[in-house]
Amino acid sequence: MAPMTATRRYPTTDIAPGRPPFAAGQTYREGTHVEARTGSTVRDTPTVLDLLARGRTLCTPPMREAVARLAAPMDTVAAYHFGWIDRDGRPAAGDGGKAVRPALALLSAEAVGADAQVGVPGGVSVELVHNFSLLHDDLMDGDETRRHRATAWTVFGPAQAVLVGDALATLGTEVLLDAAVTGGATPTDAARAVRLITTATRRLIDGQALDVSFEQRDVVTVEECLTMEGGKTGALLAASAAIGAVLAGADDRISDALQRYGHHLGLAFQAVDDLLGIWGATEVTGKPHWSDLQSRKKSLPVCAALAEGGAASRELAAQLADPTGRGEESEQQLAARAALIEQAGGRAWTQEEARRQYDTALAALGEVPMTDEVREHFVALAEFVVVRER
Amino acid sequence: MAPMTATRRYPTTDIAPGRPPFAAGQTYREGTHVEARTGSTVRDTPTVLDLLARGRTLCTPPMREAVARLAAPMDTVAAYHFGWIDRDGRPAAGDGGKAVRPALALLSAEAVGADAQVGVPGGVSVELVHNFSLLHDDLMDGDETRRHRATAWTVFGPAQAVLVGDALATLGTEVLLDAAVTGGATPTDAARAVRLITTATRRLIDGQALDVSFEQRDVVTVEECLTMEGGKTGALLAASAAIGAVLAGADDRISDALQRYGHHLGLAFQAVDDLLGIWGATEVTGKPHWSDLQSRKKSLPVCAALAEGGAASRELAAQLADPTGRGEESEQQLAARAALIEQAGGRAWTQEEARRQYDTALAALGEVPMTDEVREHFVALAEFVVVRER
Repeated sequence: MAPMTATRRYPTTDIAPGRPPFAAGQTYREGTHVEARTGSTVRDTPTVLDLLARGRTLCTPPMREAVARLAAPMDTVAAYHFGWIDRDGRPAAGDGGKAVRPALALLSAEAVGADAQVGVPGGVSVELVHNFSLLHDDLMDGDETRRHRATAWTVFGPAQAVLVGDALATLGTEVLLDAAVTGGATPTDAARAVRLITTATRRLIDGQALDVSFEQRDVVTVEECLTMEGGKTGALLAASAAIGAVLAGADDRISDALQRYGHHLGLAFQAVDDLLGIWGATEVTGKPHWSDLQSRKKSLPVCAALAEGGAASRELAAQLADPTGRGEESEQQLAARAALIEQAGGRAWTQEEARRQYDTALAALGEVPMTDEVREHFVALAEFVVVRER
Repeated sequence: MAPMTATRRYPTTDIAPGRPPFAAGQTYREGTHVEARTGSTVRDTPTVLDLLARGRTLCTPPMREAVARLAAPMDTVAAYHFGWIDRDGRPAAGDGGKAVRPALALLSAEAVGADAQVGVPGGVSVELVHNFSLLHDDLMDGDETRRHRATAWTVFGPAQAVLVGDALATLGTEVLLDAAVTGGATPTDAARAVRLITTATRRLIDGQALDVSFEQRDVVTVEECLTMEGGKTGALLAASAAIGAVLAGADDRISDALQRYGHHLGLAFQAVDDLLGIWGATEVTGKPHWSDLQSRKKSLPVCAALAEGGAASRELAAQLADPTGRGEESEQQLAARAALIEQAGGRAWTQEEARRQYDTALAALGEVPMTDEVREHFVALAEFVVVRER
């Protein structure tokens, strides 16, 4: 297949050797970044922010309506989690996340020539399922902060986090079934969308289960790590990128290609996230310096370094297997560990992996016929996802 | 509507006044009990046990197949929860529960003239969702024992209980979607079954949320308690009683009537359970004497007694609002509290409520045309559900 416009626009040549293509310190600024990376001199509107804003504008009202159906006090807990109210119940304009998934769902309807509106139940569904996983993951991982606010389980207790997560996952199916009644989708297409979200949800849970199990292990293979990240991050982005098209009646070939775009985009995102978890500056990631090293997380750079087998790799393995001083390493020790990972090739491999996954995502996009405008929007969202401030 | 055979068979006259119709101490024995209660001299086969065994025989293999799809170690945790293996992974024949819901699902296919086999995906689905709720509820409620074994969260940790619960709920939808591919249901009927289970799951979660919130309150109205129990117990029994029929293509009128049978059966069950929680003998309930009084549970007899408003009712309210000695009441104090509930009419009201709900369930069953044999099976299961050893 001939390279598409979208693929060609990716600036493979303007990145200096040794500088990670998708790593820490690169920030996304309104209207300037995509332009800079694509070399375009025409497009200077903040396209990506528009796309994200549209996703939120169209999907938030039906999402609030769905959440309002929950029995008290779950409606309150969910509203807090989404940033609609503060912990005292007062209306708030808290950070509900970037809402990349709804934006993808709407684009995906447009990919097959339908109105963005057709993708709305899909956007609501993927965002509900995403937030189900955040509520449960924060509880399981003991995370106390999300989007600069106390996590729901710390405010309302673990039971509410379990319950509201359960409820959001269920609502994620309900809104798709409603799409066949009020949203304009045929019952068959709504059922296909349910299948899509159900499969993605189970893969998401599988990924989180693997992630939790990795905490008990000293060594995780690169393949296992990719399987975990494919589940935890790839599965729902895959569903997001296809669900609008499925609701609009797209055939399986189109749905599969859009899912591959989302899946590989998720893996690219995750590779960048793993690089940031080690080498990201605190002011960029909002996390402590070397945070993933401190927690001995088996992220991609670590797994790749452990697989290399040379002297630095073996020294790293020995350090990670040694329980002494776990969680109490000095800044200097963590810096030395980061250097070992880099010496064993873990950093360079992950940088290349991010590029490979990104390219594969755009290649999959190339299999779907769509207007240039919609394609550009998919590419812009992809760049936004992999080039991040945090 | 003229009373049906099923309703007439209910032995309203052979219960002495003051003796709870569905309360502690009545045990179910193979082949004898239904016979005794219905006055039949013909039927002496252990019908109910056969119906339950059939449900387990037909639904367990596809359930094990579904569970085997989960990523490790969730497959192991689920297998332990269902009693298929012990905590060391050795095959076991543990108590996986009575499986009333699968038995109802198969009967419900037969109610509309289909083969029991048509109801199998429905039976698997409701049992998966039931066990999702058990895994999460045990964790939320801090319960350490279920079916005479340590609960999953105590053996594998809270994170696994959350994850496996999530996974079972998702599998509950997946098996119904598969029914349209391999199970013989039309895609439309499979989608209707998904709607049925999704609505039931959300009501189940709503019920558990209410139950959790009641713990923080001194007074709960009878209506609130019934809403909670309708969600926690009624919703999934309603879905169980209709899902086989829906998979077989039954219309909404039939599905609604079967759901009402299941819903009111659930409320009858719960009223009996609440009576047992206070007046049930330890050897019958497997719980400590006065267990619900010890935990100050706002069960139906308590709510009804608090609503009565007389002297005993006011004294009970004062005791429950007093935090002193909470959880440390003597046997004598608890017995006095049980007496207050009885004086305020809470026991008698709940006994009558159990009967009303049971009668309403059978009346709903009467709206569905079916063979005498299938109807008798529904009635036998209903009796089994409300007359229990534990």
